This record gives sequence, C-alpha cells and structure tokens, in this order.
Amino acid sequence: MPSSPIRRLVPYADKAAADGVRIIRLNIGQPDIHTPTPAIDAVRAYNEPVYAYSHSAGILSLRKRIVEYYANIGVELSTDEILVTTGGSEALTLAFQVCIDPGERVIIPEPFYANYTAFATQAGVIVDPIHSTIENDFALPRIEEFERLITPTTRAIVLCNPGNPTGTLYSREELEQLAEIVKRHDLYLICDEVYREFCYDGKEHYSVMKLKGLERNVILIDSASKRYSMCGVRIGALVTRNKDVTEAALKFAQARLSPPLLGQIAVEAAHDIDADYFHRVHDEYVARRNTLVEGLNSIEGVYSPMPTGAFYTMVQLPIDDCDRFARWLLEEFRVNNTTVMIAPGSGFYNTMGEGRNQARLAYVLCQEDLREAVEILRQALAVYPGRTNI
Amino acid sequence: MPSSPIRRLVPYADKAAADGVRIIRLNIGQPDIHTPTPAIDAVRAYNEPVYAYSHSAGILSLRKRIVEYYANIGVELSTDEILVTTGGSEALTLAFQVCIDPGERVIIPEPFYANYTAFATQAGVIVDPIHSTIENDFALPRIEEFERLITPTTRAIVLCNPGNPTGTLYSREELEQLAEIVKRHDLYLICDEVYREFCYDGKEHYSVMKLKGLERNVILIDSASKRYSMCGVRIGALVTRNKDVTEAALKFAQARLSPPLLGQIAVEAAHDIDADYFHRVHDEYVARRNTLVEGLNSIEGVYSPMPTGAFYTMVQLPIDDCDRFARWLLEEFRVNNTTVMIAPGSGFYNTMGEGRNQARLAYVLCQEDLREAVEILRQALAVYPGRTNI
Repeated sequence: MPSSPIRRLVPYADKAAADGVRIIRLNIGQPDIHTPTPAIDAVRAYNEPVYAYSHSAGILSLRKRIVEYYANIGVELSTDEILVTTGGSEALTLAFQVCIDPGERVIIPEPFYANYTAFATQAGVIVDPIHSTIENDFALPRIEEFERLITPTTRAIVLCNPGNPTGTLYSREELEQLAEIVKRHDLYLICDEVYREFCYDGKEHYSVMKLKGLERNVILIDSASKRYSMCGVRIGALVTRNKDVTEAALKFAQARLSPPLLGQIAVEAAHDIDADYFHRVHDEYVARRNTLVEGLNSIEGVYSPMPTGAFYTMVQLPIDDCDRFARWLLEEFRVNNTTVMIAPGSGFYNTMGEGRNQARLAYVLCQEDLREAVEILRQALAVYPGRTNI
Repeated sequence: MPSSPIRRLVPYADKAAADGVRIIRLNIGQPDIHTPTPAIDAVRAYNEPVYAYSHSAGILSLRKRIVEYYANIGVELSTDEILVTTGGSEALTLAFQVCIDPGERVIIPEPFYANYTAFATQAGVIVDPIHSTIENDFALPRIEEFERLITPTTRAIVLCNPGNPTGTLYSREELEQLAEIVKRHDLYLICDEVYREFCYDGKEHYSVMKLKGLERNVILIDSASKRYSMCGVRIGALVTRNKDVTEAALKFAQARLSPPLLGQIAVEAAHDIDADYFHRVHDEYVARRNTLVEGLNSIEGVYSPMPTGAFYTMVQLPIDDCDRFARWLLEEFRVNNTTVMIAPGSGFYNTMGEGRNQARLAYVLCQEDLREAVEILRQALAVYPGRTNI
C-alpha cells in the first residue's frame, strides 16, 4: 500500500513542531467539541470488577439505544440489524469483506476519503472512481456516468453522505435516482453517513436506509466518532436489513471477539444528550464554515464551494502541486512563527494526477484559529514559488 | 466462512439459559480474575475534555511502558518496534496481511485457536496444519515434519506459546530447533504469546524475541486481555524488529486511525501492578488446573494431559462426536438443573474429522464450579447415548 500524501507530511510537521513552530492543523477531522458529559460520567461510573468481552455484535442495551436513535430519524430497525464495530473503519472493512470477493469492483465518486482505498486494498477490492467536479460543487455524478462504469464484476456503489472530503450533501432525489440503477443491476449501495448530524442551511439529511425496495442492497456505515465527538473510543456500526450480510459479518466479528467495552459504555450514555447539544454544535460549525470559506474565497485565485454538510471543504488553490505546497508550508513558511498544515487534494483521488491544485481543509478548530489560518494561506500564496496564473 | 462448532452451540445455550437452566461455561477463556485496580482508577481519573484519536501506533507513554515490560523479561525493544493494536486479533490480522500475500501458505500446529482460521481467511492465507497429538501431550511436532510441509509458497510458521487450546508450553530447545529451519527457509515465525505469564510447575517461558539471528523473521502477537484480565478493552500489540513489517503494518493501522483510547489508558496503568499480582493469579490457576485435570482423569475413559501453560486443557472423551455431545449437554442433560458448556475439539482442527472425541475446557472459573462441572461430566458420560468403548 503506498503511503498517502497526508502521511508523507507528518515528518515535516513533526520537525516544525520540534523547532517550536506553531502549526494550525486543518488537515485532520479531530473536532475540539467536548465529549458529552453523560458519556464521560458513565465511563467513570462503570463498576464491574472485570473489563470483560462484550457480545460480538455489541452490548445489547447499546444496540437498543441505537435502534431508538434510528427510530427518531424515521428508520425502523431491530437490534439484530445493527452490528457494533470498532469504528466506522471496521464497519467498512467488514462490508467489503462480506459483500465483495477479491478482484471484484466498486464504484466510488471521487474525491473520496483516502482510507477507503486502504480498506479496499485489505479486502482485495478494485475501486473504479467516478469523477465529480469542483465546478459543480462535487454534486453526485449523473446516473448515466455510473451506468457506464458498471461491469459484470461491479458489486457495489460506495457513497459518503454528507461527504468527506467535499462537504457535499446529496439530495433525496439524487439518491432515489441512484437507487434505481442499484436495483436494476442488483448492486450493494454502501453508504457512509457518519456526518449525518452535520447538515447546514436548512438542508435535511436523507438516509439511504429510507430508500424503498433496497432492503437487501443497502449497507450503512455509521460511527459515534463525530456525532458525539469521541473519535478515540472507536465505536461504529454496520447497519443493514440484509440478513445474509449481518450473519456473515457477525462471523468475522466473532473472530475478533468484541468491540471495545469502555467505548460502548461511553456511546450508550451519549444517547442521553438532548437535541440542544446538536443545535449548539450545528451553530458552531456553521459559523466556522462561514469564516473559513468566506475567508478562502476572499483570496485571489482561490475557490471553495460552500459545503452543506460534514466539516470539510475541498478548496482549489492557484498552485502547481499541493503535495509540494503543503510541504513548503511546513518547512519554509511562517507568519509569527506559525504555519498551517493542509491535506493535499491528490490523496482523495484515485485517478492519477487529479486534485493536484486542491486541498482538503477541516473546520474543526475555533474561529480565531481559522481566521489566522486563512491569513497565513493568503500571505503564503502571494510568495509561494509554485504559484500559478489564475 | 463456515460457522464454528462453538458458535453453533450458542442458540442451544441461549435456549437452556432462557429455560432457567444454570450453565457452567467451560467453553470460553473469559477469566473471572478482577481487572487490576490501577487500571480502573486510571480510566476513572482520565480528565481530557475530548476522547480524541490517539497515535495510530498507540499512545507513546503506553509504548514506553511496554518497552519497560519487555526489558523486564529480557527483551530489549524500542517504542517504534511496538504497534499497539485493537486486541491480539488485529495484531494477527495485520501480521497476515503484511507478511503473506493472498494464496500463500502458513504452517500451524493443530489443534490451534479456532479464530486463526478466520484471520487467515480474511487475508486470503492458506493454512497447512501440522498434527500434534494428545498422546504426546501436544508437544511441538518434530522438525522434519515441519520441513516436509514447506513449499515454495510457504511464508510463515505460526505458533501459540503457551498454547490455546492445548495448554502446552514449548521449551527453549524446541524453539531453537524451529528457528533453524525458519532461518534456512527464510520464513516468518509468527508467535502468539498472549498467555506468557501463565506457566506452571516451575517451567519458564522463552520468548521467540530472544532467538538469535531471527530479527527479521520473528513477529510477536501480544495482548493485555489475559495478562491483566481485561479482555474487553481490546488492546494488543504487534511486536517485531523487522522495520519493513512495522512500516507496512503502520500504514494499515493509520487507515483505521487509532486503537481504542480508553483501553490504552487502562493498559498503561495496569503496568503499575506488582509481581505479587501475578503470583496470586498463578497460584489460583494452578489450583484450578489441578482440580479440573485431576477430576477429569478420575472419570473412566477420560484423558487430559497436565497443561503447563495458559488456562485450557484439551481433553479426550469416550464419545462418538463432541459436537453432538456438547449439544446434548445443553439440550438434554441436567444435574440439579445445571449443565456444562464445552468447546468441541473439532473446532480447533483444520484437518476434517480430527478432534471429534476431544473438547477444550477452560479453567477460568472458581474451583467449586470446576468440581461441579467435573461431577456433571462424570454423570453425563455414564448415560450419554453416543458413549463409546474405551
């Protein structure tokens, strides 16, 4: 597996940090929002004398809370349709391993979350990227373009909605159109909805679990990481009404024994938080998004779409090569002994050469840091040796 | 992946439990030993406002404690030779994925831990079992037998020492002989030492990390689950001096972001416990082992070797088929409304038809329960319809 453009930057960031340089990290999606108090309290109150294995599919009382959570968003499920996993990462790995044989193919709109490639590689799955464009705000590619890519060994379409790295929210209509070809070609529709709560400008999330007639096709990837700001607990879920998939996934899950116990305790209790928590978080992210995106678009030659979900934007920069630019920022450019770390766009494209003048920026930091980051990028782009004409 | 003989029993156990039958579970290795207090205290005291991602290789301060732990058993390591994983399960999965291409082969002495088959399947690895026998107390097969199985696509020998399910501890001499052919054929030696602390009768564990000249060959699978009686936290480690392996494994580890945070906090603090803890645990297991094994061997037609490590024994029973016997115990046999759940031996053999008259019994319960279990098995074997001549 090749190392990703983001990971290749780590030594340069470590070097800068060791030299005492302050780095504003826009490259990762680790929110600074506090983990909900009920979750932390539950972990502290856990009183069993042994940290024992839990059920391989997850603690039953946790799965009941997840069922309630889904009922609240209009999706009726039973506890045996939910497999608690070690993060969304394991859920996607299991989905690939269970649904797709080595050498078979999946279609994924690019740019997409860089680690999808790693999970596909682990399962021997071949990724056929389908291009979405920044000019079109990374909207879902047209249905005919999906159909053109479907081969006899295509087994699934993989979506992330709202999208990492694009921040694009797909509409119900787009998903229903896609559902039609998923059904016609009898594919799986594997959808990563871990940013479901992060939708802006009054737009509502439409879960693929609500698509009619796709009960055997839809596999949902979920996670508590972003929803409850507890990335470290490593608790996600594989959700599907397809009994063959849950049964096969459970066998793999039994082999690894159980998901992490303490994380499950935290997530179960996190379900106690009230809607107000999400409203506050929503408002905070909208303010951060506006600060970052408006700031970026005020820089000459820079274009960022206005994301309607998640907490990333994929921005176009007037540069030759973002791998080089991102490294230059860490190695050579400072404003008041501060620089910015960004995720080069190429890491989110499967197609060689794509995304070279793009970067993914996460707006998970406070507005003050985001304003400072924009100002550093403005000054950096004015003097970067690889600046291109606009 | 076929379902294992153990998992197939679960519905019968659930049914019996629902009917109010008490089940003494000798089928699983979930110890009742209390999780060390420093670990629980550290989790309760954890005071960061966000449960954030940790380093993909594990929290540095934890890896430093692990380095100290290894120094204490005479193995010098650096922190970058330790990759903290989500249980020993992930460590073995990573070892297979990194070291062995799909379609290549590994040799494993059977009977072996049933989930090895699942991890091999996930990585597309083919298992060549090498037979060890109960008559010989499951000693390591002779070196010539290993050599006979080595083909041009054999990449590794996989050991578990002390062994699950056998309880057999391999000697330094056996390992040194094996090392010689590992080196000659340039194989990996992947060794699961998660039961390292559980060695009895004055026998000492010899880690494969101490084998000379095998720095590039040896991959160690470790776990906190049994050592600190915290199976639920899901913290293990992949340990090797082979930099190519750690680098490749780290890439996969980066894709899944980080091992569970709270488990790492628990394990780091567990290193504070004193040697007395292990002495007490050791003495308790020796007493349990003696109770179980002496009890079993007092039943006509039953033979159990005296295990010198771990907390299992593989026992031979005068029965037609242990899958059937184990199910019959759960469905039909009760003494004072109590029955026993055992793990059929066939689940630990890769060779079809082997182990049918064997069972793995774990001695992780208190002696009173173990005595009662032996008594139930004695009475059961007297009336079981599939009883065979001895």
